Amino acid sequence: MIRKVLVANRGEIAVRVIRACREMGIETVAVYSEADREALHAKLADEAVCIGPAALADSYLSMEKIISATIISGADAIHPGFGLLSENSRFAELCEKCGIIFIGPGSGVIAKLGNKQEARNTMAAAGVPVIPGTKEAVYDPGRGAEEAARIGYPVMIKAALGGGGKGMRVAESPEEFEKNFLLAQTEAKQAFGDDSMYIEHFITHPRHIEFQILADSFGNVVHLGERDCSIQRNHQKMIEEAPSPALSEEKRREMGETAVRAAKAAGYVNAGTIEFLLEKNGNYYFMEMNTRIQVEHPVTEWITGIDLIKEQIRIAAGKKLGFTQDEVRVNGHAIEVRINAEKPEENFRPCPGTVTGLHLPGGKGIRIDSAIYSGYAIPPYYDSMIAKISVWARTRGEAIRKMESALGEVIIEGVDTNVNYQYGILEDADFQKGNVDIEFIRTREEKAARAETE
Amino acid sequence: MIRKVLVANRGEIAVRVIRACREMGIETVAVYSEADREALHAKLADEAVCIGPAALADSYLSMEKIISATIISGADAIHPGFGLLSENSRFAELCEKCGIIFIGPGSGVIAKLGNKQEARNTMAAAGVPVIPGTKEAVYDPGRGAEEAARIGYPVMIKAALGGGGKGMRVAESPEEFEKNFLLAQTEAKQAFGDDSMYIEHFITHPRHIEFQILADSFGNVVHLGERDCSIQRNHQKMIEEAPSPALSEEKRREMGETAVRAAKAAGYVNAGTIEFLLEKNGNYYFMEMNTRIQVEHPVTEWITGIDLIKEQIRIAAGKKLGFTQDEVRVNGHAIEVRINAEKPEENFRPCPGTVTGLHLPGGKGIRIDSAIYSGYAIPPYYDSMIAKISVWARTRGEAIRKMESALGEVIIEGVDTNVNYQYGILEDADFQKGNVDIEFIRTREEKAARAETE
Repeated sequence: MIRKVLVANRGEIAVRVIRACREMGIETVAVYSEADREALHAKLADEAVCIGPAALADSYLSMEKIISATIISGADAIHPGFGLLSENSRFAELCEKCGIIFIGPGSGVIAKLGNKQEARNTMAAAGVPVIPGTKEAVYDPGRGAEEAARIGYPVMIKAALGGGGKGMRVAESPEEFEKNFLLAQTEAKQAFGDDSMYIEHFITHPRHIEFQILADSFGNVVHLGERDCSIQRNHQKMIEEAPSPALSEEKRREMGETAVRAAKAAGYVNAGTIEFLLEKNGNYYFMEMNTRIQVEHPVTEWITGIDLIKEQIRIAAGKKLGFTQDEVRVNGHAIEVRINAEKPEENFRPCPGTVTGLHLPGGKGIRIDSAIYSGYAIPPYYDSMIAKISVWARTRGEAIRKMESALGEVIIEGVDTNVNYQYGILEDADFQKGNVDIEFIRTREEKAARAETE
Repeated sequence: MIRKVLVANRGEIAVRVIRACREMGIETVAVYSEADREALHAKLADEAVCIGPAALADSYLSMEKIISATIISGADAIHPGFGLLSENSRFAELCEKCGIIFIGPGSGVIAKLGNKQEARNTMAAAGVPVIPGTKEAVYDPGRGAEEAARIGYPVMIKAALGGGGKGMRVAESPEEFEKNFLLAQTEAKQAFGDDSMYIEHFITHPRHIEFQILADSFGNVVHLGERDCSIQRNHQKMIEEAPSPALSEEKRREMGETAVRAAKAAGYVNAGTIEFLLEKNGNYYFMEMNTRIQVEHPVTEWITGIDLIKEQIRIAAGKKLGFTQDEVRVNGHAIEVRINAEKPEENFRPCPGTVTGLHLPGGKGIRIDSAIYSGYAIPPYYDSMIAKISVWARTRGEAIRKMESALGEVIIEGVDTNVNYQYGILEDADFQKGNVDIEFIRTREEKAARAETE
């Protein structure tokens, strides 16, 4: 079994992983940047190692520093969390070379699935429906425009590596292709250090439906149902729920089986997520597979009772899955809302600062994943997400009312947040009816802007 | 349906009820004493009414003031929480007379079950096993001593009304009877305004096993499984869990059926709890029925998913139970720890004061029920319980480790608490083996005292 885990991340996901380890009797090592000296994850771990200045490249993205900290602290495994180095196949490979257990799939699988082109080809070969798109990486806008014309507009331009909405742009027509390609490519380079791009047909008004997978190293693969993450703004998920109000039992089974087939085709081991776009007509397409834990994993944990971080660790330690597909039971409904330190009325500008007062909701069916505390100074260098509130209730309607009540209780003084904005979405009649797609936020904002002009 | 609820309580249970109402779209009215101006329950409710000075008799126990506040605010129902007026049949009767819905059983049922003598007789007649004891209320120590001799020592002397460990004393022999009778009687008078006493045979080293009941006004009665509340100090519960590690499936079914029969025999409507003492040999005895929500209700909510406060409100509004006994599914294991502002090393002396810093755990399977916040001044007038932490996991072992990890995270600055003391219990090898009875804490403290002397 794993004895000591270094958590190569920060914020609430680092706290989440540390808690799981504590409960499993595994020692923990936190790494932190100079800007994160007072961060909760650094306080909560058994040991904490400062790995450099605030800049990501010099601390949380520095493979050498993290590997050194692991070796010096005597940790036998690294949990990468999400973002940062979690889907970096070179990092996973470095771990393998150093005899450190990387809690995630093997570097080869990460590389294959991280490259959207290769992932697509793997999935298509396994009979998983894929969106028409480029067959090879594109680096040049001129070459990209040719491909876009072949595929048919509108097209989506994406970083071939990476995820999380970074390095993505839609081009509606040939006129706006070059500009958007270059914007996406610049972002991709900044976020992932790689400028290989991928272009595909853009499906209008789909839902984002993703399936959670667990696969052990003995070839056992199960799915834990889907999450509906259609509430997005600029490809950033804001609210996630499970189960999806759009899936029939039959469609759920079909897509779940496809997801398991996809994971098997990739030779996948550990926790992963297959993201699909679902059209109104019921057609669905493989988008990508995320080879890490997701921000929104709590909703799956609520409805299945399964602890995904603990399962990741068990699988990485070479254990067999403790349950079969038939033993996975989905119960009730869960919703997660991401709380960001940002100003929605100023184009969601991040608003770091010091939390001078804090009251978060509690009670039945309320889960808080957060790394802030009263007196905590949110550093300006990192992601603006400061907390996740998730709720469980027996029905979707009850879960929505619970989340409304919970958000109504939140007091975060000292920094601006998106709490009221999120509350507005929960109150939206279309959201309440489950009648949403990934254009929901954009459409809503355009409507609001028009109303203001009139 | 009920439109507006006045919550005739304070602290975390008032917050708990207010949250349930908010989620149900029911307006809420808080009442608060002058000492509770800054209390969370007063801030959280839609309206808040000051009902008098700090002293319980002049505020939270003043029926007239609470009824007045209900009428003036236009509330159509009162939720009494636990303690205070929750099991006062005269208060329930007053509500009935004023046309206010009392969220609990009818006054007649409260009176019948609140009188331990009458409750015992009702249960015995229905074939529910009862402990040998007095058949009528006892007021005089001389008369009590005669009864105790008849029943057989050791005996337990209890307030005929009331509960929660107040007004209770054991007498091991005739020599200590009178002193302990008078102590219990004085406490009973202070706590419940009534000096009628009840004496029964004292069963040594039993477990405290209680069954949660829901009964609607159409005669449907279900039980939601048991809670094991054997970890007590001076008859005050400290840690509760569900399911009990001591019950086989067969014993659980048998006792559950007995509990349902007991509730039916009492003509019970709303949520209630049948408390049993369980001997090592499997014999069990009816102790009392609590005609209100219990402090420890979260563990039942964790393992069944059912919201007991919402069910109380629905039943009081005349709705039918939405599920049958067969549909109640018990899943996993839950533990609750009560956090008190007290000094264990000074005989658990209450330690009110101002909370200057606060960090409570969060994440998967963690529930916080609390009414404190950073900067809150805990008033010295009321119960010392300031928070309940409850956890859920798939197995008892995992739940214990989760609670240990959670308690290890708690930071409450400015006041002393029993957190470390509770942690010590969780670490106890006998507790971990589930090998406990209601003498566990006393035995443990005696052992510790002996070790210190040596």
